[in-house]
Amino acid sequence: MLTKISGGITAPQGFKAAGVHAGIKKNGKEDIGLIYSTVPAAAAAQFTTNQMAAAPVIVSRQVIENGKARAIIINSGCANACTGDQGMTDARVMAHETAKALNVDDCEVLVASTGVIGVNLPMDKVTAGITQAAAGLSENGHEQALAAIMTTDTFSKSCAYEFTLGGKQAKIAGIAKGAGMIHPNMATMLCFITTDAAIAPSLLKQALSQAVELSFNMITVDGDTSTNDMVAVLANGQVGNELITSTDSQTYREFYSVLKTVCTELAQLIVRDGEGATKFLEINVTRAVSFADAKCAAMAIAKSPLVKTAFFGQDPNWGRILCAVGYSGAKTQPDKTSLAIGDLTIVVNGQGAASFDTTKLKEVMAAKDIAITVDLGLGDASATVWTCDFSYEYVKINGEYTT
Amino acid sequence: MLTKISGGITAPQGFKAAGVHAGIKKNGKEDIGLIYSTVPAAAAAQFTTNQMAAAPVIVSRQVIENGKARAIIINSGCANACTGDQGMTDARVMAHETAKALNVDDCEVLVASTGVIGVNLPMDKVTAGITQAAAGLSENGHEQALAAIMTTDTFSKSCAYEFTLGGKQAKIAGIAKGAGMIHPNMATMLCFITTDAAIAPSLLKQALSQAVELSFNMITVDGDTSTNDMVAVLANGQVGNELITSTDSQTYREFYSVLKTVCTELAQLIVRDGEGATKFLEINVTRAVSFADAKCAAMAIAKSPLVKTAFFGQDPNWGRILCAVGYSGAKTQPDKTSLAIGDLTIVVNGQGAASFDTTKLKEVMAAKDIAITVDLGLGDASATVWTCDFSYEYVKINGEYTT
Repeated sequence: MLTKISGGITAPQGFKAAGVHAGIKKNGKEDIGLIYSTVPAAAAAQFTTNQMAAAPVIVSRQVIENGKARAIIINSGCANACTGDQGMTDARVMAHETAKALNVDDCEVLVASTGVIGVNLPMDKVTAGITQAAAGLSENGHEQALAAIMTTDTFSKSCAYEFTLGGKQAKIAGIAKGAGMIHPNMATMLCFITTDAAIAPSLLKQALSQAVELSFNMITVDGDTSTNDMVAVLANGQVGNELITSTDSQTYREFYSVLKTVCTELAQLIVRDGEGATKFLEINVTRAVSFADAKCAAMAIAKSPLVKTAFFGQDPNWGRILCAVGYSGAKTQPDKTSLAIGDLTIVVNGQGAASFDTTKLKEVMAAKDIAITVDLGLGDASATVWTCDFSYEYVKINGEYTT
Repeated sequence: MLTKISGGITAPQGFKAAGVHAGIKKNGKEDIGLIYSTVPAAAAAQFTTNQMAAAPVIVSRQVIENGKARAIIINSGCANACTGDQGMTDARVMAHETAKALNVDDCEVLVASTGVIGVNLPMDKVTAGITQAAAGLSENGHEQALAAIMTTDTFSKSCAYEFTLGGKQAKIAGIAKGAGMIHPNMATMLCFITTDAAIAPSLLKQALSQAVELSFNMITVDGDTSTNDMVAVLANGQVGNELITSTDSQTYREFYSVLKTVCTELAQLIVRDGEGATKFLEINVTRAVSFADAKCAAMAIAKSPLVKTAFFGQDPNWGRILCAVGYSGAKTQPDKTSLAIGDLTIVVNGQGAASFDTTKLKEVMAAKDIAITVDLGLGDASATVWTCDFSYEYVKINGEYTT
């Protein structure tokens, strides 16, 4: 039983949150967010694979090795990436100031940043903001925390569920931000999940890794893997279920299923709010020789500027989809490849379908949500990737980002 | 001695060309082009690595195995890709009709197509056009042939040179078309080169392969490797130099150097005419551990929509460049990485340069031609890639291509 509930990231028992405007963002909106578990919590996280990983990513990677954390301090408006030694010091100070204000250890605080790369944090503002956020922590602070992680997002992304776990009514909630520099590799963008379920850190790590693989790692907005990506989950066990200690248990399966639901929902919301997006595209590649091949072909379609602009312009130029499959590196055979857009069959075994009608295709492409299915006809593996189209607005947003 | 000359693709001795409007393009412009050597010629070509290779690519791959060709028949307005058995038949008919009109063998005719994917050629128009083009062949037909290969190109791309080869005055000339679905993999887009030099087919093949590797394979417009890419060179020996038969010879080095010059010049013209391009970006990656790494990092920068839109908007958001290097897969170390844009030092060993000034960077980014240099500080390999920016116009062109 999975029931949508309100209350956001603080809906699970024992969590508080806050968000304040410290002065990092120029627009006066919240730019320091804090999520706090009132009791020790198991923690797991996935980080960007970008070799230019930001300072907060490096600090948080160390913290997560313990498999536990109590707090997550986040700033928006500055990525604290490509900032050298000063950036590392600043990220550690963020953790330290948060720990001090909450009376926990530095190594129980995850640090995350998002915003412009290559600029140092205004640390006087940041430390004042941390003090203010810690003082303002509340069980109703989820909306402010959510606002504090946003950058070019046009809407906030969160979800919360109640679910049955070992006979108890547990809760899980997550918040995420996009909306550009989105391309999966381990984790993507910022996402924070809280749950009052009790689960051993090693199993939380495994569940998160699997869930991310099929959710955040299956989306792309622009093919750019950020320096700051992070997905973190805190599980504080306040619901009192018997601690999950085995992947073979019913409770692990229950928990994993819900975690995957939350990750998928938030990943899809990030794509829906992709910079300048006007369409939500689901790309299914079926009958590939392997999952890797299916994902590779689906990602090539999802990343192709030609495919993305065609969907923006509702131009029935479907050849670009097969072209992308052809250069993707996935094993393909033109005369076994079929293509459908929505429920319209376009190509069957490499030949244009007799029934194909450009007018109907234009109608299908006028929808906001569109499914593209490429059947490679070679094996039994499949993959689904989600992306958005490429619009004038994307160019505008990213041609004017820092100025 | 390398001297620019006029006369285009028919400047080398023994070449004729023609271009006619057969009715494939809706805009009334030339859409069938023909290049012809009046005597047998050595020939080499490189083709797309896209697995959805178009029918003309498959036909031409067979022709080039003989190492000789007399004619190249090209149509624009229709790619004859993803067209199944009918497409193969049509491509063979194009070769056959051309051969018949010129009184040569089918296997001496290269076939190339460019335009919309997934649409069959209007063969009645094509065959009539071939007959007309063959009848109109002339030593002054280069401009019509050049016009006939263009699609979304905003200007024509050609060059011609006279050069000294084994004491004789040889000539070489090339034409090319862009301007979208441009991403190197073996060859890119259409390019045809004629020369009256005498060179053995196997050496012509080797010289072309090396020249393409450092020219067409070093450019990208949108990361999409086309189904129809082809670079072909005909060398008919009319200048009467002693046949080049060894890569160790002075004449091979002379010939290779000129061929590489022609390929690089045309490759750069394609980027300058990239769809919607307002900037020409040269991306140098130096001190990488290998050429592959250097190219990989340079290509990641060149393909990044975030980098490309920042240059379009002249937004000094240089962090995106290092972000792209970080996810490129090339071996990098943040604290050894330096960055310059134009002659402005931005980052030294992973730290923002003290001298860095945003106002000056904006000035540098206002130029039309901009060089970006990333010094990885790890080895002694380097690579240069050329690309363009990403503008509203790119979205417009590709959102409305077929409609």
